[in-house]
Amino acid sequence: MRLADLSERSGVSTATIKYYLREGLLPPGRRINATTAEYDDGHLRRLRLVRALIQVGRVPVATAREVLAHVDDDSLGRTIRLGAALWALPQDPEPDEGDPAVAGARAEVDRLLGMLGWETARELAPLSPAHRSLVVAVAALRRLDFPWDAELMAPYGQLMHEVARRDLDLMESRASEAEKVESAVAAAVLFQPVLRALHRLAQEEESARRYGIE
Amino acid sequence: MRLADLSERSGVSTATIKYYLREGLLPPGRRINATTAEYDDGHLRRLRLVRALIQVGRVPVATAREVLAHVDDDSLGRTIRLGAALWALPQDPEPDEGDPAVAGARAEVDRLLGMLGWETARELAPLSPAHRSLVVAVAALRRLDFPWDAELMAPYGQLMHEVARRDLDLMESRASEAEKVESAVAAAVLFQPVLRALHRLAQEEESARRYGIE
Repeated sequence: MRLADLSERSGVSTATIKYYLREGLLPPGRRINATTAEYDDGHLRRLRLVRALIQVGRVPVATAREVLAHVDDDSLGRTIRLGAALWALPQDPEPDEGDPAVAGARAEVDRLLGMLGWETARELAPLSPAHRSLVVAVAALRRLDFPWDAELMAPYGQLMHEVARRDLDLMESRASEAEKVESAVAAAVLFQPVLRALHRLAQEEESARRYGIE
Repeated sequence: MRLADLSERSGVSTATIKYYLREGLLPPGRRINATTAEYDDGHLRRLRLVRALIQVGRVPVATAREVLAHVDDDSLGRTIRLGAALWALPQDPEPDEGDPAVAGARAEVDRLLGMLGWETARELAPLSPAHRSLVVAVAALRRLDFPWDAELMAPYGQLMHEVARRDLDLMESRASEAEKVESAVAAAVLFQPVLRALHRLAQEEESARRYGIE
């Protein structure tokens, strides 16, 4: 399809598509002549992912480019390819290791991973932004004297493992390897608001069931 | 305890405590004489909640005041008191009702609530910011052609219901009604980063188990 068709089918203006092409977020089309290029369904899919990252995920253009470079790097195995793409997304700052709440949080997170049997997550811990985010969040709770320890977190961890299994099942239902990795990245950016909203709704429902709505 | 002790035990500077007192985020202490007031454990607990809202939850001072006014309003039943406090937190903007993706999302969310048997959440829907957030998030996914329908969301909804049951069990383990509502508000602000981090870690673990870490 031509640029105008790509614009119509995606709902993205031709000016914005040209901007994405210039910024390397979208691979160039197949040149037909000096002024015309041809685009395919891969371009349409990629455009959808770029919009998801930038508009819904509010990821800066430079970050989106980095994420997409990992998505496209088929020299990597799937876990690393996925991980590298997700790890390029905006992350929490490094925790302050001098803070005793951080040391306590790190110890509890380590105990938690042991209790859950998440051995690989434990091995990857020094590399993993998710691990770092968990330490930061638990340290914030502990600094405020909330009693978050491994025992308290373990059932939440098990439930999130169930959620992650569903995420990957969903990803595996996609056709090509490129689509799989693309859908996993889109999911990482877009599932979060859905899960958060479902969580709050479930709290409302459960609260109303237990205490009524008087 | 005196202001200086409250400062030492909470780790919040006396200047900040005085600011919170002026802004009505912290109730005044019991006057002993013209220059001295006495504070108790309720003040310490409240101070912790105020810091959680402002520093960790990044809630503006005016919003924190509104949330706390609902927490303190014991004329309300527990569901409404909790709901009112949570509903005062920053929310998503209203969805654009003219957008067909929003209409589609609203229909799927309604079907979802029916499938899950969340009858009260369905009744409260027109009032609920969580319901609105879910419609907004699902509309964003549908606009990008991700096939999010009620069937796909139902298992996630069930898992989040499990999470919400644990949240409320935890809340119920607190002693007084004021502490219960305070802990629920703190949880709403502080659990989210923990759940998100656990979710990403679980994805890493599950991905590594399925595809290796080559």
